[in-house]
Amino acid sequence: MATGSDQAPTLLPVPGIRLATVSAGIKKPGRKDMVLIEAAPGTTCAATFTRNAFCAAPVTVAREHWLESDGQPRYLLINTGNANAGTGEKGLARARECCAAVAAQAGVEARAVLPFSTGVIGEQLPADKITAVIPEALATLNNDGWAAAASGIMTTDTRPKGASVSFQVDGIDCTLTGIAKGAGMIRPNMATMLGYLATDMAVEASVLQQVLAEAVDISFNRVTVDGDTSTNDACILLATGAAGNVPLDSVNAPAYVALKAAVEEVCVILAQALVRDGEGASKFVCVQVNGGNSEQECLDVAFTIAHSPLVKTALFASDPNWGRLLAAIGRAGLADLDVNRVGLYLNEVLIAENGCRAEAYTEEQGVAAMAPEDITIRVELNRGERQAAVWTTDFSYDYVKINAEYRT
Amino acid sequence: MATGSDQAPTLLPVPGIRLATVSAGIKKPGRKDMVLIEAAPGTTCAATFTRNAFCAAPVTVAREHWLESDGQPRYLLINTGNANAGTGEKGLARARECCAAVAAQAGVEARAVLPFSTGVIGEQLPADKITAVIPEALATLNNDGWAAAASGIMTTDTRPKGASVSFQVDGIDCTLTGIAKGAGMIRPNMATMLGYLATDMAVEASVLQQVLAEAVDISFNRVTVDGDTSTNDACILLATGAAGNVPLDSVNAPAYVALKAAVEEVCVILAQALVRDGEGASKFVCVQVNGGNSEQECLDVAFTIAHSPLVKTALFASDPNWGRLLAAIGRAGLADLDVNRVGLYLNEVLIAENGCRAEAYTEEQGVAAMAPEDITIRVELNRGERQAAVWTTDFSYDYVKINAEYRT
Repeated sequence: MATGSDQAPTLLPVPGIRLATVSAGIKKPGRKDMVLIEAAPGTTCAATFTRNAFCAAPVTVAREHWLESDGQPRYLLINTGNANAGTGEKGLARARECCAAVAAQAGVEARAVLPFSTGVIGEQLPADKITAVIPEALATLNNDGWAAAASGIMTTDTRPKGASVSFQVDGIDCTLTGIAKGAGMIRPNMATMLGYLATDMAVEASVLQQVLAEAVDISFNRVTVDGDTSTNDACILLATGAAGNVPLDSVNAPAYVALKAAVEEVCVILAQALVRDGEGASKFVCVQVNGGNSEQECLDVAFTIAHSPLVKTALFASDPNWGRLLAAIGRAGLADLDVNRVGLYLNEVLIAENGCRAEAYTEEQGVAAMAPEDITIRVELNRGERQAAVWTTDFSYDYVKINAEYRT
Repeated sequence: MATGSDQAPTLLPVPGIRLATVSAGIKKPGRKDMVLIEAAPGTTCAATFTRNAFCAAPVTVAREHWLESDGQPRYLLINTGNANAGTGEKGLARARECCAAVAAQAGVEARAVLPFSTGVIGEQLPADKITAVIPEALATLNNDGWAAAASGIMTTDTRPKGASVSFQVDGIDCTLTGIAKGAGMIRPNMATMLGYLATDMAVEASVLQQVLAEAVDISFNRVTVDGDTSTNDACILLATGAAGNVPLDSVNAPAYVALKAAVEEVCVILAQALVRDGEGASKFVCVQVNGGNSEQECLDVAFTIAHSPLVKTALFASDPNWGRLLAAIGRAGLADLDVNRVGLYLNEVLIAENGCRAEAYTEEQGVAAMAPEDITIRVELNRGERQAAVWTTDFSYDYVKINAEYRT
């Protein structure tokens, strides 16, 4: 299951970026499971990685190479079918081996190659299968490979996820294209899943990092499927400079506004696409919390609701079981919460006010509000001026099925 | 589904306590859905209540009456089918109305009656149905009513939960009997669900409160089904004094040790019974975390594992998907966790050590370890001397079914 449109996104080429998608046969023979992304010399690169203490070998190596290459890597090597996580020293060696193979054949240093893996945790990466198809990948790099790459990085995803926007900087046309994968183990913290964005705009590395961090914070860091932060999350933003603008070197320059808007737009589209394709998802739910004393307490309430198995199973049943929503708000850990001031809405239907059922509310209104695929749960804390929203899905039989049967 | 034995517990009468279980027809006609417990004059009473900010009307009234009666209530009035939570002022009024009806007919003050409700949240309590059967309840109070009461307080529970122990104080035989209900919305915080324990030992109120708090902390506060702390949790311990011992007035007296052992034993049995009867449960899982710097960080890791939907669906599938366990440990928020020191066991099988798959581990060992109904997941943090354990269940199709269909 999945929610929203299943139409494949139209992805614009980004001058300076070439991509190849090939089959290494990592988990299933014939599956296109390896993607190579090449960035033109001089491309700057921003990156965010998972905050899970058990980060995977490729995350460790990617972070290392990214720093050693002064934020200017030339190749991103991505495989699905195996996460190379929980694999110890051997896992690190195999990730490095794959990078070295790309480097040797492409004529760059190993630190110019960042590795990424996604798939089953705890099995050693079949590095030989990956290195065997690197010549094919290098030979088939092309500017128009985004759509194939969006499919190539999928695991339990049911549809490719990507978005492109065009924008202008100093009168120069620029493009931003991004792809992402992820459907389960989704509760990003810092970065999320695998996401790759690129623009032809020229942007200095520190500015690029800033814009990515800001965009990730209001997009990937605001979605959850099951609360399980992945070991392999990473999000990369490349800036090739092929557009020819004067390199953006300050977050205070007017061009930063245009870049930020473009990056945020693509990140939000991708983040919502992750939730829409969440494992077993039959609902797309925005949890909006208003009137908090701080953004953090709004997020605490929103994520408590979004992670509650009781709320999520009620969403699956399209059941306006608002008692479970009040119970979740009540256990979110807010100091001195006056429940008598709390209001609750399903879409625009006022369900509860002053901490209890609204006088005018009828069960029929609640049932009608829960019927659509897209639902907004709105909480009014009425104790401050801050707000925050997160996006999530329901918990369905299919979520259990997908995750009970994933390895067997 | 449920795990463990489904044999009904043998429950010993407690001198000074009488119980009645009748049908008020609150949700379903004919269902025995109301329990009245009478304590002899002079009985002391310890109580713990939910920490959910949205506590239900009966919790508010019970806490109020308990304090006003100087910890010596005479009647506990419990209904299922309706939680009287999220019901505002009207809910408080109806809870008080029920207490007043018992008081008037029993010849006590209203503050001597503590109300408890469990069932659907957000619907007004049909107080008239309850008051209508209070005469019948008062007329049928009897010493041997524990088993009927254990059934009478059930909601989605599939089996009654209770336990009795006999112990000696100063050469005098004493009895402790307890019952509890709960299968979902279970992540107690302070108290849990509804639990009622009584002893004929004479214990002063402050000492009784201390022993209950200590016992709840290592029993009900260590179980979770779905992480959802209820709005209605309460646990009550009555001490009638009918045994005739010199009243226990100090936690330093030798008799405290005997009482504490008895209360802890019954609380642990009841808490584990909640988990064994957890909604849709097919596994009983002990998550044991050793080698932490503090008990709290051991609990953080244990509860992160116990709440992970990915871990719980893998448990349902009997899949030794230890990668999900490492991922959960890694996101538990421990400062400076050195994942390279972490060890992981399924029962006695070493699965991972030094942060990655153990050399000698085979998938066959893992599958064999996951096969039994009862499983222990043991994490060795290897960074300190503290430990903690929690008990939980898996996430099955039936959990989704039960909670998607509970109101419809």
